[in-house]
Amino acid sequence: MANRNGKLSEEKVFKDPVHRYIHVRDKLIWDLIGTPEFQRLRRVRQLGTTYLTFHGAEHSRLNHSLGVYEIVRRMVDDVFKGRPEWNEEERLVSLCAALLHDLGHGPFSHSFEKVFHMDHEDFTRRIILEDTEVNRVLKTEGKDFPKKVAEVIAKTYSNKQVVSLISSQIDADRMDYLQRDAYYTGVSYGHFDMERILRVMRPREDQVVIKYSGMHAVEDYIMSRYQMYWQVYFHPVTRSAEVILTKILHRAKQLHEENYTFKQEPVHFYSLFNGEVILKDYLKMDESVILFYFQAWEEEEDPILSDLCSRFLHRNLFKYVEFNPSNEQMMKLLELKALFKKAGIDPEYYLVLDSSSDLPYDFYRPGEEEERLPIHLLMPNGEIRELSRQSEIVDAISGKRRTDHKLYFPLDLIEDLSVKRTAKKKIIELLNLHK
Amino acid sequence: MANRNGKLSEEKVFKDPVHRYIHVRDKLIWDLIGTPEFQRLRRVRQLGTTYLTFHGAEHSRLNHSLGVYEIVRRMVDDVFKGRPEWNEEERLVSLCAALLHDLGHGPFSHSFEKVFHMDHEDFTRRIILEDTEVNRVLKTEGKDFPKKVAEVIAKTYSNKQVVSLISSQIDADRMDYLQRDAYYTGVSYGHFDMERILRVMRPREDQVVIKYSGMHAVEDYIMSRYQMYWQVYFHPVTRSAEVILTKILHRAKQLHEENYTFKQEPVHFYSLFNGEVILKDYLKMDESVILFYFQAWEEEEDPILSDLCSRFLHRNLFKYVEFNPSNEQMMKLLELKALFKKAGIDPEYYLVLDSSSDLPYDFYRPGEEEERLPIHLLMPNGEIRELSRQSEIVDAISGKRRTDHKLYFPLDLIEDLSVKRTAKKKIIELLNLHK
Amino acid sequence: MANRNGKLSEEKVFKDPVHRYIHVRDKLIWDLIGTPEFQRLRRVRQLGTTYLTFHGAEHSRLNHSLGVYEIVRRMVDDVFKGRPEWNEEERLVSLCAALLHDLGHGPFSHSFEKVFHMDHEDFTRRIILEDTEVNRVLKTEGKDFPKKVAEVIAKTYSNKQVVSLISSQIDADRMDYLQRDAYYTGVSYGHFDMERILRVMRPREDQVVIKYSGMHAVEDYIMSRYQMYWQVYFHPVTRSAEVILTKILHRAKQLHEENYTFKQEPVHFYSLFNGEVILKDYLKMDESVILFYFQAWEEEEDPILSDLCSRFLHRNLFKYVEFNPSNEQMMKLLELKALFKKAGIDPEYYLVLDSSSDLPYDFYRPGEEEERLPIHLLMPNGEIRELSRQSEIVDAISGKRRTDHKLYFPLDLIEDLSVKRTAKKKIIELLNLHK
Amino acid sequence: MANRNGKLSEEKVFKDPVHRYIHVRDKLIWDLIGTPEFQRLRRVRQLGTTYLTFHGAEHSRLNHSLGVYEIVRRMVDDVFKGRPEWNEEERLVSLCAALLHDLGHGPFSHSFEKVFHMDHEDFTRRIILEDTEVNRVLKTEGKDFPKKVAEVIAKTYSNKQVVSLISSQIDADRMDYLQRDAYYTGVSYGHFDMERILRVMRPREDQVVIKYSGMHAVEDYIMSRYQMYWQVYFHPVTRSAEVILTKILHRAKQLHEENYTFKQEPVHFYSLFNGEVILKDYLKMDESVILFYFQAWEEEEDPILSDLCSRFLHRNLFKYVEFNPSNEQMMKLLELKALFKKAGIDPEYYLVLDSSSDLPYDFYRPGEEEERLPIHLLMPNGEIRELSRQSEIVDAISGKRRTDHKLYFPLDLIEDLSVKRTAKKKIIELLNLHK
Repeated sequence: MANRNGKLSEEKVFKDPVHRYIHVRDKLIWDLIGTPEFQRLRRVRQLGTTYLTFHGAEHSRLNHSLGVYEIVRRMVDDVFKGRPEWNEEERLVSLCAALLHDLGHGPFSHSFEKVFHMDHEDFTRRIILEDTEVNRVLKTEGKDFPKKVAEVIAKTYSNKQVVSLISSQIDADRMDYLQRDAYYTGVSYGHFDMERILRVMRPREDQVVIKYSGMHAVEDYIMSRYQMYWQVYFHPVTRSAEVILTKILHRAKQLHEENYTFKQEPVHFYSLFNGEVILKDYLKMDESVILFYFQAWEEEEDPILSDLCSRFLHRNLFKYVEFNPSNEQMMKLLELKALFKKAGIDPEYYLVLDSSSDLPYDFYRPGEEEERLPIHLLMPNGEIRELSRQSEIVDAISGKRRTDHKLYFPLDLIEDLSVKRTAKKKIIELLNLHK
Repeated sequence: MANRNGKLSEEKVFKDPVHRYIHVRDKLIWDLIGTPEFQRLRRVRQLGTTYLTFHGAEHSRLNHSLGVYEIVRRMVDDVFKGRPEWNEEERLVSLCAALLHDLGHGPFSHSFEKVFHMDHEDFTRRIILEDTEVNRVLKTEGKDFPKKVAEVIAKTYSNKQVVSLISSQIDADRMDYLQRDAYYTGVSYGHFDMERILRVMRPREDQVVIKYSGMHAVEDYIMSRYQMYWQVYFHPVTRSAEVILTKILHRAKQLHEENYTFKQEPVHFYSLFNGEVILKDYLKMDESVILFYFQAWEEEEDPILSDLCSRFLHRNLFKYVEFNPSNEQMMKLLELKALFKKAGIDPEYYLVLDSSSDLPYDFYRPGEEEERLPIHLLMPNGEIRELSRQSEIVDAISGKRRTDHKLYFPLDLIEDLSVKRTAKKKIIELLNLHK
Repeated sequence: MANRNGKLSEEKVFKDPVHRYIHVRDKLIWDLIGTPEFQRLRRVRQLGTTYLTFHGAEHSRLNHSLGVYEIVRRMVDDVFKGRPEWNEEERLVSLCAALLHDLGHGPFSHSFEKVFHMDHEDFTRRIILEDTEVNRVLKTEGKDFPKKVAEVIAKTYSNKQVVSLISSQIDADRMDYLQRDAYYTGVSYGHFDMERILRVMRPREDQVVIKYSGMHAVEDYIMSRYQMYWQVYFHPVTRSAEVILTKILHRAKQLHEENYTFKQEPVHFYSLFNGEVILKDYLKMDESVILFYFQAWEEEEDPILSDLCSRFLHRNLFKYVEFNPSNEQMMKLLELKALFKKAGIDPEYYLVLDSSSDLPYDFYRPGEEEERLPIHLLMPNGEIRELSRQSEIVDAISGKRRTDHKLYFPLDLIEDLSVKRTAKKKIIELLNLHK
Repeated sequence: MANRNGKLSEEKVFKDPVHRYIHVRDKLIWDLIGTPEFQRLRRVRQLGTTYLTFHGAEHSRLNHSLGVYEIVRRMVDDVFKGRPEWNEEERLVSLCAALLHDLGHGPFSHSFEKVFHMDHEDFTRRIILEDTEVNRVLKTEGKDFPKKVAEVIAKTYSNKQVVSLISSQIDADRMDYLQRDAYYTGVSYGHFDMERILRVMRPREDQVVIKYSGMHAVEDYIMSRYQMYWQVYFHPVTRSAEVILTKILHRAKQLHEENYTFKQEPVHFYSLFNGEVILKDYLKMDESVILFYFQAWEEEEDPILSDLCSRFLHRNLFKYVEFNPSNEQMMKLLELKALFKKAGIDPEYYLVLDSSSDLPYDFYRPGEEEERLPIHLLMPNGEIRELSRQSEIVDAISGKRRTDHKLYFPLDLIEDLSVKRTAKKKIIELLNLHK
């Protein structure tokens, strides 16, 4: 099916709603798509619990991974090819890194990482380097090839230009997810002129720069990103589902530690609970498995586990109020916790403070935690300038972190507190719910 | 949250990529959406195995159900309201029937219905009428209300006009799924001017007719439907996945009947295997459960069950050739079956003839099986004419059934037949695979 | 600005709403776009009088010409390049012919050609071959180059493959105008998957064939074309404006022949009236000039010329009734003409029978007038089959001409016939206007 | 055709690419659309010279006016209707003001207003109040009705809520043109979620406020506006065409004042040249007339008039360099002017400094020139807050004016300066053109 230079005898295409078509010409890419590890991404949603807020957001990480691959393919095949600053030998490692960059994501991975103290990037690396089908396919390209791909994803690869294709403040990953998530949720944000941005990208020594003539398209992209974060990714209903999900995992772990006897024993979770996850087990984890357990656990006798699973499955989520973590408010929170306990509602699981925070764009702050490479413009005179020094709009939002705190709780349980009139009244008052 | 006339105090909206927004003003609708039975539809994909061909087609039946509801809502609130032929009292039953019409669908329901001889419409009826949350919510509208909703869906409701809103050759169901499936797959078919069609719909005695001025929009809709069937719904790669899925279910059932000892006992399937499904069990069935089992069964010792599950999960599907079921070809099929057996590949599971068939539009054929109500035009002079008598294009395709037969088989297994050279050669020849 | 091989030092792009961007890499193309003859197409609307029906349809022939060029560019640069059946030397002649194929169009050219018995194709040829800027630019490519371009447009070029790119039943011209006209009018017809069609086009000896896998996209294209003809191009309101326009030109010509003294002498029309158009004069003709005259003529003393111009400018168009040109109906028409005369309304200008006719697709009918090259499919086995033999839908409409006749008249004038009660009543009766 | 309450017996619709359909239910609106003064707007482009940069931008002011009407119709019929703060009696005056707000625009009106010191708003008022068809139609609604409509447009109407519908920082006018101009040019800016903004608009005493939940949609709208200004409206190629157009009008006026004998006497311009424009003459002015003259003037003997007309018609525009009006640079400009004169190129017409300036959003600055009403949010607690106090992004750009200066000149003429080597060299140096 492939000829000598690793090209398929006939180009394969996948129909894609965002990029129209995903084009595959390399046998290596085709074979990677066919591995069990890559196909597993069909069973992990790109946006976790977001589908409970935006019913259209049911798309998988496989869907997104193909998109990132296609964007990098256009960069290297349509824009960079033939330019002296671009090393054609980096083409295949770039394509593979783009395709595989999310390989290690588990089901609902943000919650998972938080509860089980793990890191999806670590699993991405392991899937690429250890004994997997992906590793076998990558090795057909050379013994060191898997290591190179893993390094690009880990941002430790020597050629920073290649790294920046999928990890920078304007990379293929972000360009795909903003558009794709906007498409599936149906929101009108998330659109920007990617075709223009691609056309004005230029490889330079350690990075990819943007020709000045494309600055407004980049501004638009940054604004899209900002809007998507606050309108979609941090949507309070999504956060509420996330809070419940996290609490389910906590509860199951706690019960396991307390030697609770499950009707549906959490065999898939044992290694996670114990903190020693072997790769083979990890690869069995996907959202079907999680939802299978949640459904089973809905019938456990532990009332908290059962209730939380039921809430998640049937979208009976927590309500929320804005919460400003000042001293005064934190005192109020303590008081609320006490009242919850008194009312028989375990505040550990039913009164949750959750924060979202985003930095829409940042210039370079060497030495600081979470260093972010800034976007650079290539000016008409050949000079390189950092974006926020040229764009007033970007300058206006650059480096400004916005944080939002909310307090989540089950309004229905509180309203049902018929026998605990005083506690109920006080809780409602503290949560400012009386109207 | 609702005032006296059953309206929510504030309209709720869901962002929808196809209809922009889904508007909910009635408390009854809001409560139905919140039932576990309706939320379960999030775990059943609208297009079954299609996501293995079109990676974008990961949307659920809940997604589609909201869309059908919204279309009927626009019909009754924006177009029919105030017209003398429309009975305003039918509004709520129409909306509920639209929202709930797919409630009984199981996971991958076409295969399920075929293997287990069941009928999703029967389950829809039971979920509405038996002891469920949906039934409880519906009864708040009146004791007989669930029965009325079930009758509309079953097409036995006395007011045929209401029935036709969701069950005719141009109903809200079809109008939603054509557009929605096109949107999620990304294909360029499936588009037609629904807004125009809605504007020219007029309630008449037993049906809804279309003003003549909208005829071309209807032609376009029928052509869209035709294209979607052959380009998406009958796509041979999707059919291949469907074939494998069906064979997995067959195999599990057979093993169960043969008292095979499963590592993962198919407890969720027992009642299906035995043909006596109780509703409570049925409602636990969804695609998470199926995929959970398939993953577990991949490690069963039965080589057929394990292989088929692996193929389905990792998209290692069967290949196909066109097959014309003439006597001569059927002889060839027998010969092939014998050769497969000889080569050690069970033809029962690995050589499958599959047919797709569609009738893009049909006029009225009283007495015939599968009677289909034709589309009627309201001519400028007030006359009612059947569509195909007025539209040359529709006439050209009216009543013409198109059928397609394909033979599916695992090309990789055949190519691996190194020790059975002769059988292999002969199989390849009969399947016309030599090139 | 251009380097040795005729390429611009930097690619130029035009933003285009239909194709996103129009890419220009050849200095020759850039220079042709800059000629006065090409820029003149900005002042000729692509759809003539259609903007009076669909207010969005104000786009010019320059707009469309760039689109046709871009489609051919994609064919030759992205699809054909490197294929053995494609002669790379034909690239530039193909691009030029695409860009210039509409160069000879006059203002509202259908009416013009009809009234003045001229042919825009003849003027296209003359602009390319005679003493113009376009000719000078083309000659930089070779002395014979203009002749080659003209031959491609005239369909007499020896390489029929090249001819078919812009003149066949699925050429770049049609693919652009269907999409572009749909975009500007805003109708939902006119969409088809051009990207797919381009991808499956294959150059063959005397034609371009379509791989079988693209058949459904071609079916969709043909249906789009059909819908656009009847929904947009033959829209009766557009036809009404066309009828009035034609009658204005007739009237002006007649007055000129009768030595009527115009306040605004029709100097720009003299050569048209006399039937001896010199190229220089023709190139001065555009829709600004026409509208300038119509505005001036609104104040002429001739009541017919003044009234018709006023109707056209202020969109006070004729109404219409369906008319079936049977003997009986033709008798009725005669009677109506007599009644119009009696009522003082000149039927020559105010009672107009107009017909529209279209053949959505035709197979090959050698020897017949208006021979049309059929679309050929390239079957998987290498065989070439005519489209209608493979596609049931295309077969159903193939070769079937549809014709529509309408009778146009000024309803307002008839309604104003207060002193001629009997004639008015009879006219209204014959036109079936009483209700 | 209309019944007693002024409604048409059947709703009329226009297909619109931006809003899908324009709905007309009121006979008054239908009649206004049919007036010669409104139809004249078909012959005035919405974006003046922009079509020379973005070939798709050929849409007329009629096109836009229908759009503004439709947005206001949706506001008053779909959002405001029934709300206590909205006075239903203002409905019709709002719709008429929306439809007619641009009525007084002349051809290429920015240049016109500048050269002839006139004001299109003044003409809008006169067309509504003086002896026109529009005035006659409006008076059918009441003797004072035209005055009310004119006052709304002039912002002097007593009900400021009504005024704000078409004149505020988030009015129907802006919402239409941003989307429409984006659609026709094809740029990817200009999109925002208008449907959401409409849904959250609430009439309040003197204004229309936006519910807080729609704040992000408003931010997106403001960013769209910002991008459209710098990417489309101030595009330097468009400005170049504008510069040439202005200079043509200047030259014609000057020649007229110098008693130059035109071959094509500028009769349509006399009253403009003399500064005493009568309405009847003004209404004859449109872009057909302008282009007719420019074509005629291309053959005038005055070399400047002829050259400039030729440049405009054939898009042979001026080039530009950035120019910062510091003292130093102004000295350089003087030097350049001298050099141009020496080289025989009149700097009055061929060396033009042009500035663009925009204020993307402004809060309220009472007493300052060009007072702009800020956008107000309706907070969940009922409080009203000015937008930039709530939105960080809007705050960042609020009140910040951005200005851009460019120097335009004919590069071709300078390059042709073969006999004036020294001047040429010096000019090229001063303009920084050597590379």
